[in-house]
Amino acid sequence: MFLEHLHQPADLQKLNTAQLTELCQEIRSTIIGTVAENGGHLAASLGTVELIVALHKTFQSPEDTIFFDVGHQAYAHKLLTGRQELFSALRQYQGCAGFPTPTESIHDPAAAGHAGTAISLALGNAAASSQAGQSRKAIAVVGDGALTCGISWEALDMAKTYGQNLLVILNDNQMSIQPNVGAMARCLNRLISGKMYNRFRRGVIKVVEKSPCPGRLRNLIRRLEDSLKGLLLPPGALFQELGLRYLGPIDGHDLSVLLEVLARARNLSGPLILHVLTEKGRGCDFASTNPTRYHGVSGYSLPDGAIAPPEGGSFTAAFSQVMVELGRKHPELEAVSAAMIPGTGLLAFQQNFPQQCHDVGIAEAHAVSFSAGLASAGRRPVCAIYATFLQRALDCLYTDVLLSQLPVIFACDRAGVVEDGPTHHGIYDLAFLRSLPGLVIMQPASTAELVAMLNWAYDLKQPVLLRYPKGTPWQPDPDCPPEPLQLGQAALLPVPGGAVPKLLLWGLGAELRTASAVAAILLHQHQLPAQIVNPRFMAPFPAELARKFAYLPQFSIEDHCLSGGLYSALTEALGNQPHQPVQGYGWPADAIIPHGKPQKLREVFGLTAEAIAADIAARMQAYS
Amino acid sequence: MFLEHLHQPADLQKLNTAQLTELCQEIRSTIIGTVAENGGHLAASLGTVELIVALHKTFQSPEDTIFFDVGHQAYAHKLLTGRQELFSALRQYQGCAGFPTPTESIHDPAAAGHAGTAISLALGNAAASSQAGQSRKAIAVVGDGALTCGISWEALDMAKTYGQNLLVILNDNQMSIQPNVGAMARCLNRLISGKMYNRFRRGVIKVVEKSPCPGRLRNLIRRLEDSLKGLLLPPGALFQELGLRYLGPIDGHDLSVLLEVLARARNLSGPLILHVLTEKGRGCDFASTNPTRYHGVSGYSLPDGAIAPPEGGSFTAAFSQVMVELGRKHPELEAVSAAMIPGTGLLAFQQNFPQQCHDVGIAEAHAVSFSAGLASAGRRPVCAIYATFLQRALDCLYTDVLLSQLPVIFACDRAGVVEDGPTHHGIYDLAFLRSLPGLVIMQPASTAELVAMLNWAYDLKQPVLLRYPKGTPWQPDPDCPPEPLQLGQAALLPVPGGAVPKLLLWGLGAELRTASAVAAILLHQHQLPAQIVNPRFMAPFPAELARKFAYLPQFSIEDHCLSGGLYSALTEALGNQPHQPVQGYGWPADAIIPHGKPQKLREVFGLTAEAIAADIAARMQAYS
Repeated sequence: MFLEHLHQPADLQKLNTAQLTELCQEIRSTIIGTVAENGGHLAASLGTVELIVALHKTFQSPEDTIFFDVGHQAYAHKLLTGRQELFSALRQYQGCAGFPTPTESIHDPAAAGHAGTAISLALGNAAASSQAGQSRKAIAVVGDGALTCGISWEALDMAKTYGQNLLVILNDNQMSIQPNVGAMARCLNRLISGKMYNRFRRGVIKVVEKSPCPGRLRNLIRRLEDSLKGLLLPPGALFQELGLRYLGPIDGHDLSVLLEVLARARNLSGPLILHVLTEKGRGCDFASTNPTRYHGVSGYSLPDGAIAPPEGGSFTAAFSQVMVELGRKHPELEAVSAAMIPGTGLLAFQQNFPQQCHDVGIAEAHAVSFSAGLASAGRRPVCAIYATFLQRALDCLYTDVLLSQLPVIFACDRAGVVEDGPTHHGIYDLAFLRSLPGLVIMQPASTAELVAMLNWAYDLKQPVLLRYPKGTPWQPDPDCPPEPLQLGQAALLPVPGGAVPKLLLWGLGAELRTASAVAAILLHQHQLPAQIVNPRFMAPFPAELARKFAYLPQFSIEDHCLSGGLYSALTEALGNQPHQPVQGYGWPADAIIPHGKPQKLREVFGLTAEAIAADIAARMQAYS
Repeated sequence: MFLEHLHQPADLQKLNTAQLTELCQEIRSTIIGTVAENGGHLAASLGTVELIVALHKTFQSPEDTIFFDVGHQAYAHKLLTGRQELFSALRQYQGCAGFPTPTESIHDPAAAGHAGTAISLALGNAAASSQAGQSRKAIAVVGDGALTCGISWEALDMAKTYGQNLLVILNDNQMSIQPNVGAMARCLNRLISGKMYNRFRRGVIKVVEKSPCPGRLRNLIRRLEDSLKGLLLPPGALFQELGLRYLGPIDGHDLSVLLEVLARARNLSGPLILHVLTEKGRGCDFASTNPTRYHGVSGYSLPDGAIAPPEGGSFTAAFSQVMVELGRKHPELEAVSAAMIPGTGLLAFQQNFPQQCHDVGIAEAHAVSFSAGLASAGRRPVCAIYATFLQRALDCLYTDVLLSQLPVIFACDRAGVVEDGPTHHGIYDLAFLRSLPGLVIMQPASTAELVAMLNWAYDLKQPVLLRYPKGTPWQPDPDCPPEPLQLGQAALLPVPGGAVPKLLLWGLGAELRTASAVAAILLHQHQLPAQIVNPRFMAPFPAELARKFAYLPQFSIEDHCLSGGLYSALTEALGNQPHQPVQGYGWPADAIIPHGKPQKLREVFGLTAEAIAADIAARMQAYS
């Protein structure tokens, strides 16, 4: 048992390679056990155990600075940097964050969560240290998937200029969440297999051996061979062209090799790229057999990794199904995803319409503009991007879709607070989307409404965005069929018993569930009948309805930041006329919303039905 | 005179090469004359005349689809696609847009204005046509500067998969606005000079010639030579590795060569990249001598291109000066720009502190994360990015700066409506910034306030953003020294004659000029004394002040979209309490704000001091 005695990275110096190998085993067990319980990113974290142990054995964090790209592979790093106890509460509220978090440790120099920025961060850090004449390293640990992100290339383009102290570790498991796509992935594969090179080399040697060959020619051919190695193994050559010295590929699970090569890298001046081959899910049968399934999980049983099926319906499942139905009706339909085919629910569409389903890699900006390009040729793309990742494509959405008025439909899943924490909360998208001209924004409350909205959006032939959370959809009353959709029109729910409402209660999307629960409490405990409103459209916003009811106090509930979303739309609509007070319930804009189970976060931030109902009742009393 | 007889691209078929050469001359004269009068992007547009003529002679737009990246080089395209008359009103309200605009012509398949998205757009278009079994081409005309944009690489990474009908024209003038930076620029330079290759080739030939060399070896070496050409001339090899067939480089001003190579490209199946060498400012002495100066201009005199010096002070000039002063005080200061050193006013800082001034290419996302990296090592970066371009870096700003709470200062110039039109208006940034936690947002009204704010922000050591427009700053009353800055506190201007104010008038930043003019009209024509407020902070917003004056009608003036900015902040602050009406004056959120002189746009949208004062007076009467 070594792990429990390690309180800081320097403690690794006490251990020899055999002991480190044992330590890796302990780390794996800890990760597998903790993620079984708390959920998390299993497969990626199991793949980097030896690499992280070797990094901390070789370098001195925090002087040497380690930036983990995305950061979901950094569990071993957390365990080696004094966070073992915290790690047992992985992803719990006030427990260990699932991603690098500077407030958690000095060994996390920057927050991470989305892919592609680690090389930029490390390059900035390296620029500063070389400016100061220091030789400490700035290390970026990036997956091969990060090479599908444009920002990685923006950084590599400048690596030669600033990267004297830069070490890029290319953690190549040939996957991001799914197997990687694109030319770079093909290049890396060729680099690993080295087949072309070996075949060519054998040919050269044979010819040279048979030739009456002078020494000078033999030397020339040997030099040619060195060059050709780079040519036929292009990523090495490419990185060299960008000014990085390329080392590798090496086995990322062989500690001795890792320690030897990292020690060499430590003493070389950069920029360096070290190509390390790892296996996702390493050391855990069920995860290594099915790394996509065990990329991010909510937990599983041990020892077999069985995962309980999700309860009830979900927006994702409804989206998955309606896309297939829509595909059968409309041969023009296309689906575009940025390395998120399973997560966004596009697997079924991909299976049914493989030619019309496009995974473009972790490249959200390109996904949006590529969709615009498809639309410019008369196709009808649905671009499925999580709300949090859409902030990577704002510029393309505005220029290439909205200003061009190309009929791209956006399906934004995970729009709301999620377990993963601040890097992944989908609670700012309305703020950056709602002000843009020419975008219709809809939010379904139920799965049936999602289906209706997607069909409606298809027929509209304009840029439309649908957003919906991971959480449980609202279940409409089967006896009250919903009103048909009309651009910019909200839907009113029946007031129980036909009572005259004393307040208006807006619930955005699935928050109709909360609103219904709040209304029930208000009615039964406070004799306050509420008119519930399903806004349906966030743009154009049903402002007229808000104004019509200006004589009633209005309350809004949204799984979004309180600034820029439903509350803002309401107050904007009412601001220039006399109105009763409006109170909003949502995530505060002036605080970073931490990680934790969404239900727990709602309790902490006073956003449960009970807390909201109590606050409304108190306010109603104060108003009267 | 050929130009006047050309009404559509097909009309070019009537002209032979000699006549086309004359046509190019006419086009150049038209561009030089029109831009002298109306302003615009001169140097880039002069560089692409032959290329665009050859493109329209060879391909059939709109069946073959041409996407101009950025689009400021497309004036010749506008002149050849039935927009000659419109072009005489270039950049005028309701005249010809300075950028491709689908509402203007079917020959503009998508809007453009920011760099890097054309390959994605063309690839989507190409995917659609090859899916349909068509062979029409999708053509992306990209500058070499676009290769510093990550999204270009995201698209190139997928070119092999979708690009059977893709033709990328690399319009290489070795500049974006300034000379290009980074490894890719170096690679392209080597490709052009070809020195390494030629030296090596001569060496090989010499050795082989002297050797008693069997035919088989000679053949092998010839094959090696072909490969080595790729190796030693890496961009060709790189593009080939990405799956594109590489043609070039060719002279982009030689019509015969262009026509010959484009005809060849038309018949090849893609993806293809054609490397064309052009000269910015070609055919215009003053522009070709100083292409950076004549990149984008407000006009000049002919024949010498003399440019009148700008009138009065500007925020850019004040920023330029204070950065140098700050650099003298603080050796930790760094400046980061995304290919905008002159435009953002960083030239003086670069001249004084070359080691601390970083141009990272057209790579805004990287610029932000690189700044975060600098800050993570204790440096104090000021990252200067126009408001409109900051939407390319939202994700990095949120994760790498705000969640990491690294003290990066953002200087966002051009925050407001600009002549260039919708692609460049800086009127959405507050909407996407104001909701983000942990970002202090300030807006100076005067140049003195900008200086004070930048110094204050430096001392705060948190993420801070300053935004300011291109327009004329407010001139504070020299007899009323401004109150010192306090986090989240607004400044009140004196009410003339100490009268009791009847309304509150908020003016955001330089809009204090408008607010002062409005107040003067209200006082003198309507006997309505107004309390003018300079909010100074948009986050944290001085909400308490708004609440304190809830008993007065409030009016807000902002050079920002009406949703998500000052008006939203005010109504959010007042929404949940009784208050007098709030009326906002800003750009409507539900309309695309077109191009035109800002003053003209203000007239059109009712945002002149006169129009606002009249509206306020009418409302005040209605309220009373």
